[in-house]
This record gives sequence, C-alpha cells and structure tokens, in this order.
Amino acid sequence: MNLIILTEKDRVDAENYVLEDHRAEHIRSVLRLSEGDSIEIGILNDGQGSGTITEIDSNRVYIKAQKLEERDYTSLLPQIDLICALPRPQTMKKILLICGTMAVRRLYLIRANRVEKSYFHSPLLHPGNYVPFLIEGLSQGKHTRLPLVEIHDRFKPFFEDVLPLKEQAGQHPALRIFPDPQSDRIIGDLYDGSSGRILLAIGPEGGWVPFEIEMMQNHGFQKCTLGRWILRVEHAVTASLSQIEMIGLANR
Amino acid sequence: MNLIILTEKDRVDAENYVLEDHRAEHIRSVLRLSEGDSIEIGILNDGQGSGTITEIDSNRVYIKAQKLEERDYTSLLPQIDLICALPRPQTMKKILLICGTMAVRRLYLIRANRVEKSYFHSPLLHPGNYVPFLIEGLSQGKHTRLPLVEIHDRFKPFFEDVLPLKEQAGQHPALRIFPDPQSDRIIGDLYDGSSGRILLAIGPEGGWVPFEIEMMQNHGFQKCTLGRWILRVEHAVTASLSQIEMIGLANR
Repeated sequence: MNLIILTEKDRVDAENYVLEDHRAEHIRSVLRLSEGDSIEIGILNDGQGSGTITEIDSNRVYIKAQKLEERDYTSLLPQIDLICALPRPQTMKKILLICGTMAVRRLYLIRANRVEKSYFHSPLLHPGNYVPFLIEGLSQGKHTRLPLVEIHDRFKPFFEDVLPLKEQAGQHPALRIFPDPQSDRIIGDLYDGSSGRILLAIGPEGGWVPFEIEMMQNHGFQKCTLGRWILRVEHAVTASLSQIEMIGLANR
Repeated sequence: MNLIILTEKDRVDAENYVLEDHRAEHIRSVLRLSEGDSIEIGILNDGQGSGTITEIDSNRVYIKAQKLEERDYTSLLPQIDLICALPRPQTMKKILLICGTMAVRRLYLIRANRVEKSYFHSPLLHPGNYVPFLIEGLSQGKHTRLPLVEIHDRFKPFFEDVLPLKEQAGQHPALRIFPDPQSDRIIGDLYDGSSGRILLAIGPEGGWVPFEIEMMQNHGFQKCTLGRWILRVEHAVTASLSQIEMIGLANR
C-alpha cells in the first residue's frame, strides 16, 4: 500500500476522514504511525498529497487531509483504453489490479466467442465487488484515478455501435492494436509515442476467432506481437501496458 | 496448456510416454483428442514437435513422440538471468510461472534486508514443489527449457563471490540492470538490443535498502525505470521481461 486511498464513504467533514478497515490496520501495523505523524494519501478521483493522523486507536484512524495536489490525468500520456474479452473471475481480479496500478483510463469487458457464458453471471461484475480491486491497484501504483469499467455482453454491437459513439464523443483513441501470435510487428513498429491515446484489445484464453479478428481489423485494429512466447491473459495485459509505457516514456 | 510437456518420469521406452495426471485430463476434456490424433508436445529440456496419441482411456493417455526438433536455446536472444529478492511464497509462484513462460534462463532467489526470514523456510523452495510452476510456464509459453533456479541466503556473498564465479565460467551477462523508482532512464536507454544477455535484479516488496543499491552499483548494475507507476514485484518481473523482449525483437 504505497498510497492510502480515501473515498467519500470515509469522509467525516470537509477535510477529515476516518478509517476502520484494512487501511487502518496497515497504518497501525505496517507503517506504525502515531498521532501527529504525516501520511501519504490520495482522495479517490481527486487530489493527492499528505495528511496528518489526528487520532489513532485499535479501532479507528482519523486523518486530516492537507496539501493535496490535483493531478491532470487528461494530460497523462500514454493514455490507454483496454478492451478485454471477459476473463474468468480469478483472472479478472488480476486484470483489475493491474489496470488500477497502471492507470488504464477505461476497461471494456466484452463478450467473445471463447468467453464462457457463465462469466457474465459472476458476482465480480457488480461494482461493489470489482471496485476494491481497482482501488488496491491505485494504492499500489500511487495515483487516484479510478479506471472506468464498462461491460458489454455482445461482441458485434460493441464494435459497430459502442465504439463509434465513443468516437463521436471525442473519445477516439488514435491507435488501435491487438496482440496476436500471428503478427511479427512489435508495438514499437505501430506506436511511436507521439500519439498519446491507445485502444488495446486483449483476447480470451484460446484467442479471438477469425470472425472477431476480421471485425476488429475492419474497425481499424492492427495486429502486434508481445514477444516470442504465448502469454496468459493477465500477463498479456501487463506486457502490453509495460511496452506501451516504455515507448511513451522514450518520447516524453 | 499450449504445449504438453513430457518428462523422464513419463517415459515408457525410447519414444513412448504415458500420462495419468492433469495433462491426461487436459487432453481428454479440453483438447478432446482420440486415438490416432496428433498432439503438440515438448520433452523437458529437449526437443519439441508433434506426437501421436496411441491409446487413451479414462485413466491414461499414451503418446508416441515423433518429429521432434531441437531448439537452440543458447542462441535465443535476449537471454535473461533474473535475480529476485526472495518473495513471499504466493508471489514466488507467480514469478516461477512467468519465468517459465518467458524463458528466463536462470532465476537467482536471494536474501535481502526486506526479505522476511521465514520465506527461506517455505516448502516451496524444494524443487519438487517449485518445478511444477516452472513447467506450467513452459507449457504456456510453448518451449521446453526449464529455468535453472539457485537459492542464495546471503546478499553480500552473492554479489562478491557467486556472481564473479559465474563470470569466470563465461556466464557474465553483458548488461546488469535493476528497476528503481528513483531512476528516469528507461530500459531502452541502457539496452539497445545488440547484446543479448542481461542480468536483471528485482527487489523485495518495499525495495532494496541503500546498502544493497550501493553494492549492486559497485558490481556494475545500473538503475532503470519501468514506468510512471510503482509495480508489485510480480508485475515488475513481467514488465521488465516484456520491455526487454520488445527491444530484443526490434533489433532482430
């Protein structure tokens, strides 16, 4: 926990917060802070900076938020929107965590041919269940912007209707890519770091079927390789985000 | 399971193997293969190619190995030796899997100041317990070379004695790097893909202490950044390997 994330639910008044859960335990047992100590905090989808412990006991930790700075996330580049074929719940937890950590802006979880129908009935698809994994990611990655999650349970309408609407709303990422074992173009061949926004699609275990690949290509998605080895879904997400991240930093 | 890995233990005679475990179940229930079908196989630390199912029932699957090709792993570049501060067992499992998947050549698990002593008593440090995670990785990544694992329970002697011995044995990777949040040099600033061998060191949760950083720098290790966000240990491993992989492919 590199940053204690505070939410509206924790707020007592304008600048005071109270924690009673695993965050309070972390402050007591791992950080070992006492009254008067300073602590790094971030307000969910808001400022980030330092706070002061105003009161601490075995049940609660009171924090006064001070010196918070707003970070301009819209200027943070590269900025990634991630499409994932809805993975099994255990894999989805890992993907939520890395999306939170690496500041993915938007996560689209979509239907694909090789997605098991039962995954759409997982309790994990309720915000109350998936948001904690995203927040754990923010707390790890040290920032406060919660990724937006959208669930789309039909494949074709997602590409034909949903994405064009996003485009009209000015949310059209410049570059659209999807890792595919058939490609030998690295992400660096497709992305030079100058355009900041990327729409990245990661397939299900077993990969996209030909119809899906064709549909994506018709909507401007280009194939890329992540390397010589076939990666698990969650590793493909981390690998793609990390490769894009490096290219972005090389072009600061 | 993209490749069924066969080991000496499974061998019946020169080219016949018998499986009774989760691999047999995978062949029956996921691949749904029958007698006479062809199957992709790899022999641990040996050839890779196709086999034929010669007999299959609810208990056993018999496979005849044919058309195996040896892969020259020594010429595979980039070639990575990974040093990890011994992580907690749950994290170690994830690291073993990704090391297997992404063909890390050697994994050194070492002591560091912020490694809990109890981790060195984990049953996972016995080859019988950790090798299955590596093999799961090979099976995912589709290759047959098992990473070599070495456990060193003292930090200073590892850098002062063990690494120099590896150098004398001609196992001196050209480039030595370690991710550090203090650096703003990306791996691409340090590695141009021309040298194929890299020694990469990943710290414990909470990071290396100053003494350890100094020691590594005295032994030729350079700091690098993996990006803007602080990553969990297992994500730092996947991110580093993936970034190196992309640079390597860019310089084929």
